[in-house]
Amino acid sequence: MTDPKSITEYIDRALSEIEYPDEPAALYAPVKYTLDAGGKRLRPTLLLSVAKALGLNPDKAINQAIGIEMYHNFTLLHDDIMDNADLRRGRPTVHRRFSTNAAILSGDAMLTMAGIYISRCDDHHLRPVLDLYNRTAMEVYEGQQYDMDFEDRDDVTPDEYLNMIRLKTSVLIGCACEIGAILADADKETCKAFYDFGLYLGLGFQLRDDVLDTYGDPILFGKQIGGDILNKKKTWLLTMAMSLDNTGDLNRVLSSTTVGDDEKISSVRAIYDRLGLKIKCEELIADYSSRALKALASVEMPSEDRQYFIRLIDKLTTRNS
Amino acid sequence: MTDPKSITEYIDRALSEIEYPDEPAALYAPVKYTLDAGGKRLRPTLLLSVAKALGLNPDKAINQAIGIEMYHNFTLLHDDIMDNADLRRGRPTVHRRFSTNAAILSGDAMLTMAGIYISRCDDHHLRPVLDLYNRTAMEVYEGQQYDMDFEDRDDVTPDEYLNMIRLKTSVLIGCACEIGAILADADKETCKAFYDFGLYLGLGFQLRDDVLDTYGDPILFGKQIGGDILNKKKTWLLTMAMSLDNTGDLNRVLSSTTVGDDEKISSVRAIYDRLGLKIKCEELIADYSSRALKALASVEMPSEDRQYFIRLIDKLTTRNS
Repeated sequence: MTDPKSITEYIDRALSEIEYPDEPAALYAPVKYTLDAGGKRLRPTLLLSVAKALGLNPDKAINQAIGIEMYHNFTLLHDDIMDNADLRRGRPTVHRRFSTNAAILSGDAMLTMAGIYISRCDDHHLRPVLDLYNRTAMEVYEGQQYDMDFEDRDDVTPDEYLNMIRLKTSVLIGCACEIGAILADADKETCKAFYDFGLYLGLGFQLRDDVLDTYGDPILFGKQIGGDILNKKKTWLLTMAMSLDNTGDLNRVLSSTTVGDDEKISSVRAIYDRLGLKIKCEELIADYSSRALKALASVEMPSEDRQYFIRLIDKLTTRNS
Repeated sequence: MTDPKSITEYIDRALSEIEYPDEPAALYAPVKYTLDAGGKRLRPTLLLSVAKALGLNPDKAINQAIGIEMYHNFTLLHDDIMDNADLRRGRPTVHRRFSTNAAILSGDAMLTMAGIYISRCDDHHLRPVLDLYNRTAMEVYEGQQYDMDFEDRDDVTPDEYLNMIRLKTSVLIGCACEIGAILADADKETCKAFYDFGLYLGLGFQLRDDVLDTYGDPILFGKQIGGDILNKKKTWLLTMAMSLDNTGDLNRVLSSTTVGDDEKISSVRAIYDRLGLKIKCEELIADYSSRALKALASVEMPSEDRQYFIRLIDKLTTRNS
């Protein structure tokens, strides 16, 4: 179970063994389709790894791991409708493959199923686990709402962007880690330490994603580069550039209707480079990595588990894929 | 608190006093808009009335009453998107007034908020209340899925229709009643009795709605009559008529593209009348009413509370509005 690959396999197996009612088939088919699509399984992996590092048999936390992954996939399913996305993990999104109605209703079912799995714990863990999970879920919606609000705004600040990704992405990773700690009967400080670890890891993870979207190798990253630029997505890079660029170049390039996509991407990238933003963003990621590390420093755990978390931070925040 | 009007006012006040975060405003505005729209408040009224009948101060059950009403309104919000409905309680639906994205995301937030309110009970009630609520929520999605499936089928049977409305409508009413009983520390038999009471009341309530949609007075009922017929909704009346009519008249009228709406409605109504279906449906409703009554018979409660439930059954299953 220390081998990350075997944890992922354990989670994939648990997800594939979920038993769905036979009827109504149209309600459960999109749920199965979504959970069968694979993915990093980052959140359940962290939940189980934290539980294990604190001495709990991962079997005792698998239901909550499933619940968190179910919740995460529910958000992807509904976000894909809202973003009008065609593809997810190389396959048609649920609303394209089935229908928008199927995506709405099956997403709702996934949200309730997530709650059912989350609540399958010992009675004395139920309240703290549930309260953390519910609070986090509300924050995730807030993050998604800010993300949508930002589309129509030109004055988003870098701090607002960081707050948005904290809510939309990071708190759920922090929540997954803390649930692992709660289930292992950790004290409050340890629970908080693992929450912070997940939170900062999540921030570094998302910012790394943003860097890759602009600077990545399309083959390694697995998707087209420059999508954020073309969509004028208010990332940290763009909002920083907007606040620093006093030449007007950025707005001219972004609003141009005559410049082609490739030229637009390379022009914006050149502005980022002139402002030193790639390096600044990587420094910010490194700062979050070190905060994630520091959060773990005070927690007692076997050396192999600590090494695992350290490698994971490094891998997720310096990854190319 | 025995006066139904004062219960409704108590619930309306509690709903209006919910405190929402200031930001992001676009997430919470549709939630407030939805809950401010009024409505019968049937589910929270029943929850509080059952709690009171069993000796519990309704204040001790108000959070669950809010949670159940929040859940119910979440389903309406998402159902309205799926049904492409323009109006709800005389006002534009959320997806019309705001946007489809707002309706999806704010609906999701309402579902999680419902769970938060549901879980605000004493620790020893948390597990049974939550399990019942989650199981019921899954059944409601199944009911909605069947309802959508039926649109594309011509062989729906009356029993399938009854099963669909049991899931889509009645189980949540049963759930509301049983939560009131659980919170009042009722024994298993009493909990089951109140669940059954709510379930049968819900079936009668929905069938009465169907009768009114075809036979009601548009002024009293508050909406146009005949919508189910024009939409070929697979109600008990229509599925019964389909199974009994061997003249082919029904299919001819329903599939006609030359017959006007009013003529279509009166022709279908004439077929129902020829088959005695209005009376048969009213007999079925009376049967559910008597089952709801019977479920209460074994439960000890003050006479005024029993009278209240008896009057409520009568009111909801013989109502004209």
